[in-house]
Amino acid sequence: MKLATIRNGRRDGQLVLVNKSLTSMCEAGPIAPTMQSLLDDWDRIAPQLHERHAALECGAVPGARPFDLRDVMAPLPRAYQWCDGSAYLSHAELVRRARKAEMPAFLYHDPLMYQGTGDTLSGPRDPIVMADAQWGIDLEAEVAVVTDDVPMGVDKAGALGHIRLVTILNDVSLRNLIPHELSKGFGFFHSKPSTAFAAVMVTPDELGDAWDGRKLSRPLISRVNGRELGRPNTGHDLDFDFGDLIVHAARTRALGAGTIIGSGTVSNRDLSVGSSCLAERRMLETIEHGEPTTPYLQFGDTVEIEMFDAAGASIFGRIEQQVVRNVAGPAAPERQLADAMV
Amino acid sequence: MKLATIRNGRRDGQLVLVNKSLTSMCEAGPIAPTMQSLLDDWDRIAPQLHERHAALECGAVPGARPFDLRDVMAPLPRAYQWCDGSAYLSHAELVRRARKAEMPAFLYHDPLMYQGTGDTLSGPRDPIVMADAQWGIDLEAEVAVVTDDVPMGVDKAGALGHIRLVTILNDVSLRNLIPHELSKGFGFFHSKPSTAFAAVMVTPDELGDAWDGRKLSRPLISRVNGRELGRPNTGHDLDFDFGDLIVHAARTRALGAGTIIGSGTVSNRDLSVGSSCLAERRMLETIEHGEPTTPYLQFGDTVEIEMFDAAGASIFGRIEQQVVRNVAGPAAPERQLADAMV
Repeated sequence: MKLATIRNGRRDGQLVLVNKSLTSMCEAGPIAPTMQSLLDDWDRIAPQLHERHAALECGAVPGARPFDLRDVMAPLPRAYQWCDGSAYLSHAELVRRARKAEMPAFLYHDPLMYQGTGDTLSGPRDPIVMADAQWGIDLEAEVAVVTDDVPMGVDKAGALGHIRLVTILNDVSLRNLIPHELSKGFGFFHSKPSTAFAAVMVTPDELGDAWDGRKLSRPLISRVNGRELGRPNTGHDLDFDFGDLIVHAARTRALGAGTIIGSGTVSNRDLSVGSSCLAERRMLETIEHGEPTTPYLQFGDTVEIEMFDAAGASIFGRIEQQVVRNVAGPAAPERQLADAMV
Repeated sequence: MKLATIRNGRRDGQLVLVNKSLTSMCEAGPIAPTMQSLLDDWDRIAPQLHERHAALECGAVPGARPFDLRDVMAPLPRAYQWCDGSAYLSHAELVRRARKAEMPAFLYHDPLMYQGTGDTLSGPRDPIVMADAQWGIDLEAEVAVVTDDVPMGVDKAGALGHIRLVTILNDVSLRNLIPHELSKGFGFFHSKPSTAFAAVMVTPDELGDAWDGRKLSRPLISRVNGRELGRPNTGHDLDFDFGDLIVHAARTRALGAGTIIGSGTVSNRDLSVGSSCLAERRMLETIEHGEPTTPYLQFGDTVEIEMFDAAGASIFGRIEQQVVRNVAGPAAPERQLADAMV
């Protein structure tokens, strides 16, 4: 089944079921008013929703109405945990070259993962609101899974059994703030603001052959201002699958229901398919021409991220965000920006 | 008013009001079934709860019953955001000396802060469950505030106006995993497992002279196996107050209602008051005797953290946790532990 969350004036919105072609929806109903309420009690509720979804698919749900991407929030508008891995090491290799940092050998068997924040997740049409374009605003097109409760110290077979939903996302990153933040030793913080999600999360059975139980295998298409940035296949060149990433996340603690685990920026070693973030393109330009020619995102720019099934239909709906200046708060202090640019 | 969350079989428990002496409680009622529901709509609900709390204080609430610390969860059992600062730089200085890392000058004007996870917060009597005592299990006694919605780019005066609740906590840390994790460049992850909170969160007006609008000023007492580890004053030697920490957290994004902002380990430059974590004591032993003699926490050890008001009454209730071996999952792979011990 496909699931989305519609604005209803509340922070967690209204959970809806969406048909396969993303044209029609119906409320999940009082048994699951929100996505978190479903994830909290998945085994009891999901079978009932699967039945209702099947009825929606054949037009048999009274009160079904058109699905409009302009009405949606992030499918899980607030998450208690958002962990983002770095499963495609070709990306990590390029980013580290861009940062002039070395790629340690242990990264090939010990996944990179950072703790993100889930309190203000963005919907697929929400703007990317920033105070300063000099922060180096970038997209990162990724795949993510959502788990139910995962016990501490889970093994890989167990981990894969906790994957309930799959989606795509834009892990908005502030490239020019990263070097200063990482130099502080406490990880990303300012440089990973609100992450944006596609309209729809789907159960793995919706993905057919594109899902093998461990990874999703389809091209993930990114565009900036309507021009394609890349279409790497999400099933190629993964150094870690979602089982590995969940095992890693749960090593010293249990994961609460509704934990989102991201793949990191999708990246293939075949460079002809392009990139899923501007940092990678800029790195390739530097290698070829000595300096980057593609700028990071500017105010007014648009980003699109989308994935199609083998028949050409959009699986999750298109992420389509515009970069907008934050007028509510003060701009960054010059000192901090100067630090960040070092 | 003082607020706690009582187990009721649901993930978010039942919000209750607790009297000043922590002996009596009553349900907050249907207007605020959970702590998050209160934080989501603070301005509308809190005035009504303040009235009910005043009635509880004078014994005028029918159905009030004894408050038992064994029944409580974390006051906010799941948080959408948990950000922990490092406001007491004397701690950061000692920890960095222990890690043989330098203390960069910019840390004196640019706060350290890491992104924690809020999906599985522990209550004050919950055990510290770990697979391996060789991970270097340590306590960190801290103060925290909880905010309502904070806009991106808030200034300091604005930030202070968003502080709704104050409490104390144990930021459980796995010292022997930290060097390897920080060498990966993505910050803490495994080394910051489930954080434990005192039973009660209080509105700032409950704190009298001990709260000046920016910081809490009382000794914070930590004990290990019944022996005092330290009693630093939380109002001494802060390099950043909670206004500074909220401004920092909100620099590139809004903070959702229910964001928890921690002070970092409380530490005074007067060494006679002791420490709020074992890492500091071990560092001081190394300076004095050439090597640490106090071990990290072992299975069976107990940790207590508490703060008293000027009249000697416990403000938040005592955190009292035992370290327990996780029997559900596998122990750490030896390779990873070996990496971590480097």
